Amino acid sequence: MTSNIGYTPAEKGILIVLSGPSGVGKGTVCKALRSKAPELVYSVSATTRPPREGEVDGVNYFFKSREQFLQLVDQDQMLEWAEYVGNFYGTPRKFVEETLQSGKDIILEIEVQGALKVKQKFPEGVFIFLLPPSLPELESRIVGRGTESEESIRNRMSVALEEIRLMEHYDYAIVNDQVDLACERILGILTAEHCRKDRMVSKIKHWMAEVNH
Amino acid sequence: MTSNIGYTPAEKGILIVLSGPSGVGKGTVCKALRSKAPELVYSVSATTRPPREGEVDGVNYFFKSREQFLQLVDQDQMLEWAEYVGNFYGTPRKFVEETLQSGKDIILEIEVQGALKVKQKFPEGVFIFLLPPSLPELESRIVGRGTESEESIRNRMSVALEEIRLMEHYDYAIVNDQVDLACERILGILTAEHCRKDRMVSKIKHWMAEVNH
Repeated sequence: MTSNIGYTPAEKGILIVLSGPSGVGKGTVCKALRSKAPELVYSVSATTRPPREGEVDGVNYFFKSREQFLQLVDQDQMLEWAEYVGNFYGTPRKFVEETLQSGKDIILEIEVQGALKVKQKFPEGVFIFLLPPSLPELESRIVGRGTESEESIRNRMSVALEEIRLMEHYDYAIVNDQVDLACERILGILTAEHCRKDRMVSKIKHWMAEVNH
Repeated sequence: MTSNIGYTPAEKGILIVLSGPSGVGKGTVCKALRSKAPELVYSVSATTRPPREGEVDGVNYFFKSREQFLQLVDQDQMLEWAEYVGNFYGTPRKFVEETLQSGKDIILEIEVQGALKVKQKFPEGVFIFLLPPSLPELESRIVGRGTESEESIRNRMSVALEEIRLMEHYDYAIVNDQVDLACERILGILTAEHCRKDRMVSKIKHWMAEVNH
């Protein structure tokens, strides 16, 4: 009768997938989370693009040859992958699963289509959709980058609208009105997911069994 | 295209039901929550017991005659009720519903059987079960009151075990290892519930409709 039902090392971690339309600020929120929640692990992508100066294998990316990358795909070792400007990018399953097994939570920041692919392979993940405070605000964030033509902005807005319709497939949606608030909401969701009854019941079964013998 | 999808006054509040075995510290946690989260409304019970000195109708309790109380029961205006030492105690539906309609969250602290009755009438509530850090710890909290015989303690522990089995019917379970942590978990759950996709979709429908016309 001495066991404790706080968080135990035996508990598996939670995969949080943070997604949302381009321009919504996924990267900024994730960066802020890194300093607010250093105990969270951040998923490392694999890529076939050559390392840039200062990039470290296993930290910034897992650097792979095309052959290695495609072999991992064949072995169902990529939770999702895509080709972008001639290079492959993907999310290695092994790093995610090993982190979860070690009892740590891991966060994966990814665009909307990629997130839905991850959901097919990893439905037990917690899928969070990041929303802009309003559509005009999203537009001004895209315009604010100053790098795009009017047509390109219109095009990106229409893609963003299509993507927002896909939030239906997510568990949660949070508004990125202030980065700090968005982080708090993500950490609140993480806390809540750890407290879900089913998670706790599986702990208490062990605890009750000890008590009943 | 000017609407905002942060929390709006149009959004209904959430009913949080906090329950758990006697001795687990529900009252202490609720008291701490009151100072940490003054924006939360606390459910006010109805009772037929006469007001004590300083107690204010509508603040400490809604004071009712037996006739008034039973009439409310007949009109299905009590989410749950029970008789205790010759007096009736219950949770008036009207106060809860009016608070939720005003967009505020309301918390109801209640014993396990009462919570399950509330769930029958109010399944959209969020039901949180408070657990002791361990059974020996619960026992020492009951013993610590110093007012009970050994038989009474054994009896209360066996009731507590029965009640812990009922956590199956709850949405979340949290451990009351430290009052501050328990409060944080409750507030995390509340944040998460506000960010549930279905809640947000119903907001964004309005938002998307504005965009599409």
